[in-house]
Amino acid sequence: MLVLVTYDVQTQTESGKRRLRKVAKKCEEYGVRVQNSVFECIVDTTQLRQLEIALEKIIDPNVDSLRYYRIGKKYDTKVRHVGAKPAIKVEDPLIF
Amino acid sequence: MLVLVTYDVQTQTESGKRRLRKVAKKCEEYGVRVQNSVFECIVDTTQLRQLEIALEKIIDPNVDSLRYYRIGKKYDTKVRHVGAKPAIKVEDPLIF
Repeated sequence: MLVLVTYDVQTQTESGKRRLRKVAKKCEEYGVRVQNSVFECIVDTTQLRQLEIALEKIIDPNVDSLRYYRIGKKYDTKVRHVGAKPAIKVEDPLIF
Repeated sequence: MLVLVTYDVQTQTESGKRRLRKVAKKCEEYGVRVQNSVFECIVDTTQLRQLEIALEKIIDPNVDSLRYYRIGKKYDTKVRHVGAKPAIKVEDPLIF
């Protein structure tokens, strides 16, 4: 099934920036980044549980948040994108 | 039906910051902010079309993006939130 993972991580501190990098890195193991804080993951129930446990160990629940949306199996017609393609690894410094 | 609207707006410029404020303000007319760039809207097909048209007039499609996810009518069991509650009007300056 398609599960959408969205997150807000407070990045005013260095530890916050680290949490953001870790959350994004963990999500990359399970899915595709479609916007800065939005990942689409094709997972089964076990994988989703693994991802949830991993992410919940990373975040600070007092200031950060995670949301999971189970979109289901038939998702082709349920998603619409407009505009620019997602940036890659937005939390990393750009190296030219 | 529940429609999730997620957006990335490039805010390095003043015009980008303006676009972000306008996108958030327009989304507030149709739904509830659940994360910085994520709104949940309970809309019918006509309202969704209105929102889409309005948002697509605001964004710069070369650098910004919008995504719409139709979650459907039975959404209670499909959404899970972990951690902090959403900040309010994060794109506005804080006034104490």
